[in-house]
Amino acid sequence: MKRDTGKVYLIGAGPGDPELLTLKAVRVLAHADVVLIDDLVDRGVLVHAPRARVIEVGKRGGCKSTPQSFIERMMVRLARRGHVVARVKGGDPFVFGRGGEEMLALAAAGIDCEVVPGITAGIGVPATLGVPVTHRGVARGVTLVTAHTRDGAGPDWAALAHTGTTLVIYMGMRRLPEIAAALLAAGMPQMTPAAVIEQGTTPRQRQVIATLATLEAQARAAQLGSPALIVIGAAVGFARGLARVEELAQVA
Amino acid sequence: MKRDTGKVYLIGAGPGDPELLTLKAVRVLAHADVVLIDDLVDRGVLVHAPRARVIEVGKRGGCKSTPQSFIERMMVRLARRGHVVARVKGGDPFVFGRGGEEMLALAAAGIDCEVVPGITAGIGVPATLGVPVTHRGVARGVTLVTAHTRDGAGPDWAALAHTGTTLVIYMGMRRLPEIAAALLAAGMPQMTPAAVIEQGTTPRQRQVIATLATLEAQARAAQLGSPALIVIGAAVGFARGLARVEELAQVA
Repeated sequence: MKRDTGKVYLIGAGPGDPELLTLKAVRVLAHADVVLIDDLVDRGVLVHAPRARVIEVGKRGGCKSTPQSFIERMMVRLARRGHVVARVKGGDPFVFGRGGEEMLALAAAGIDCEVVPGITAGIGVPATLGVPVTHRGVARGVTLVTAHTRDGAGPDWAALAHTGTTLVIYMGMRRLPEIAAALLAAGMPQMTPAAVIEQGTTPRQRQVIATLATLEAQARAAQLGSPALIVIGAAVGFARGLARVEELAQVA
Repeated sequence: MKRDTGKVYLIGAGPGDPELLTLKAVRVLAHADVVLIDDLVDRGVLVHAPRARVIEVGKRGGCKSTPQSFIERMMVRLARRGHVVARVKGGDPFVFGRGGEEMLALAAAGIDCEVVPGITAGIGVPATLGVPVTHRGVARGVTLVTAHTRDGAGPDWAALAHTGTTLVIYMGMRRLPEIAAALLAAGMPQMTPAAVIEQGTTPRQRQVIATLATLEAQARAAQLGSPALIVIGAAVGFARGLARVEELAQVA
């Protein structure tokens, strides 16, 4: 490592609410020279980076997203000029954030890289409804997955249905009908509590709480769209004002 | 809700490093009247609660742990006296933190309760080694589980092995031999990268990185003990200084 080479921090900004930033993220932002911020991250986090140049990357409305390779080259170039670079992502950099790819690209270029974890939406967003993703006797764990994978195939929904864990699905809205069908086919009960939560932890949060059998119709009726999280499992029955524990026991 | 009734915040303090506290947690602590803190939480977080009375609960070394029902009754009593109570837990309150149970007890008593999420060890701790718990083409998701459940039965390890997700096991050190045996029996390759990480994100962090076949022997040789996290899956191969992506592809 040359003494005049900078460093890149891959920072998780949490699910939406800028107050869910960590103290460590705030400290790094305070001395960052450049901030590369994803479009989905609330601009409120930038108050912590008063001296940084801000570059917006990532998906923007209907426009094309910044290519991943372009972002990686930019980080390498900025670090080689000696800059401290804060790469700010929604949620956690290592949970569907492509942080692993960026870490590898930086390592290949000999650039020092440090990860500052953030609260992932899959855990922080259900909490806003009083839904614990794990709960003794109800949900023995939690699985975070995306609906699509690089090769175009979906996850093994039958295996997931048999884990006994709460299933949290990121970026799954377009495939909700086939996800529900696959889980039902694997033997998951129709009455399993399920939710779709749009823009969780922000002032624009909206959600529907339904069952596995009715979720898609209800989410469509409420016109919920991306970015949204799908949460499926008996623990969703704890959602504020919904089922009681005794009712849940019959579903689990 | 009576006007003179207090409120309880269930706060996640993150995996160990007090800098992983969120800004929201810090704000709540600043105006808390009473802090109920778990023994595993770093006392460094208490600098943010200068005006609070501090009550230590939870497991302490070899001593008996504070009964859960006692903690719940204490929270109800304090809130009824009008206090703002900050209940501080390690990790996230809703990921194996019994936060769900405390939320239900408070709701049953008519006490207002708000959850402040924290970074769960299962995601934040592997990151210290450069391990992304999800990674395109390598780990299509992540599953967080405990080794034991209330009824004494373990999770369905065969189903978990077939999810294609990184497996993160909390509180599993005593059952490591049977966990590894069950995953191998389910067809998970012997060479699957695997790690045990003790006291992650703290200055006392230690770990071994091995394979599913050798993890237990290596963890024993290194005398690793609780609290520790077990991480199993191809993504563990990214651990700093270990395998490269090409090698991982053969394992995945």
